[in-house]
Amino acid sequence: MPDENRQKDAVSIILFSGDLDKAMAAFTIANGAAGSGMPVSMFFTFWGLSLLRQEKGDGHSFLENLFKKMMPAGADNVGLSRFNFGGMGAKMLRKMLHQKESFTPEALLKMAMDRGVAFTVCEASMKILGITREELIPYERLSISGVDSFLQSALESKIHLFI
Amino acid sequence: MPDENRQKDAVSIILFSGDLDKAMAAFTIANGAAGSGMPVSMFFTFWGLSLLRQEKGDGHSFLENLFKKMMPAGADNVGLSRFNFGGMGAKMLRKMLHQKESFTPEALLKMAMDRGVAFTVCEASMKILGITREELIPYERLSISGVDSFLQSALESKIHLFI
Amino acid sequence: MPDENRQKDAVSIILFSGDLDKAMAAFTIANGAAGSGMPVSMFFTFWGLSLLRQEKGDGHSFLENLFKKMMPAGADNVGLSRFNFGGMGAKMLRKMLHQKESFTPEALLKMAMDRGVAFTVCEASMKILGITREELIPYERLSISGVDSFLQSALESKIHLFI
Repeated sequence: MPDENRQKDAVSIILFSGDLDKAMAAFTIANGAAGSGMPVSMFFTFWGLSLLRQEKGDGHSFLENLFKKMMPAGADNVGLSRFNFGGMGAKMLRKMLHQKESFTPEALLKMAMDRGVAFTVCEASMKILGITREELIPYERLSISGVDSFLQSALESKIHLFI
Repeated sequence: MPDENRQKDAVSIILFSGDLDKAMAAFTIANGAAGSGMPVSMFFTFWGLSLLRQEKGDGHSFLENLFKKMMPAGADNVGLSRFNFGGMGAKMLRKMLHQKESFTPEALLKMAMDRGVAFTVCEASMKILGITREELIPYERLSISGVDSFLQSALESKIHLFI
Repeated sequence: MPDENRQKDAVSIILFSGDLDKAMAAFTIANGAAGSGMPVSMFFTFWGLSLLRQEKGDGHSFLENLFKKMMPAGADNVGLSRFNFGGMGAKMLRKMLHQKESFTPEALLKMAMDRGVAFTVCEASMKILGITREELIPYERLSISGVDSFLQSALESKIHLFI
């Protein structure tokens, strides 16, 4: 019989999107929660993986390389979900963020790591997109796992969001 | 007074998107949860309905037909949320999925039905888009209902996601 | 020690998207829940702010004005997340909604206010996009706050969705 009461004040976020604006929203929520002492886990799947890549790696097939070229490498290069205008929108947003001295996506990612947010990378997405562990940023709290890992963490969290 | 403890280890997913990649994410979560014995219900609304259509039906008005033409019929024809390139992105992903012998979206849909995932189709979306019951895939666990049905199911589930 | 049982039959929605179809889905869920007596709070962030703007205001910088021009003012002017065709998709949907005598987005927004749905506008998004309180619709249950406010409300709600 399942324990009905085991949900904690924790947050589980699936980051499916690789868009700059959605990533910023995800990390802002994650960092806010982690800053309040809540355990936070982020599950990176599909386009969300692009935020954790450190550089363009060598693909294992033409199709994989093509996909890799379409996927920006690292939090510095992702676009907006809307009004991207070939990168213009993202550039403008970045500039505005700097003018306002707000946090950049890179800083948000680093803050999440400093606050101990757990990163889980979807194993199936890595296989499909041909991405290896070496292409991902180094972080001791980064693990590679399947959907069961997300479900387990989500069952134990009060808040879960698909972004 | 509401019962504070009635949430079960269940999953409620609103599938709003008709994109191939998002649908794959939704069905992967649904099938993973159903495979672990968790009750899963999926509520299909708006573009998500395109995944359950079996073929292009006869619309009831010009506008409806236009909308129908824009909505791909069935899980075989949906595009990606990003980098679709007039269908190219989706074709590539499909090919990669086959190369990797991973699950296709069609197989994921079938697996969800085999595992008894409950499908609820949003009545208002059907009305707005002019889609009838006959145009949807046959499945004994498919029902047509309103937002109250989603809310009821979500209140009884620990995990609920909008995809 | 956190209280494990304090989640109520309440709904917390983050409205990140400014798309017409997603906004309709968000308000339909919010209004359905509020109509059943559930407390509902909506947290408007990023593009979602466009739904609460009453008119195009004077920006404080060129970049801000450019962003403002890209952000449609008010629920009457937002586009679809898919198949927008330079506004065509949204116009068609609106026309179909009227033909079907369904609710328009404007009516859904008004209904949410009539039913006492709490609106919280993300302070950081307002700063980044250069939007002031005066540019938002008047509503006594509209407040301006940060991510902590969303987290607090989400912890106390059984259902939370990122749209």
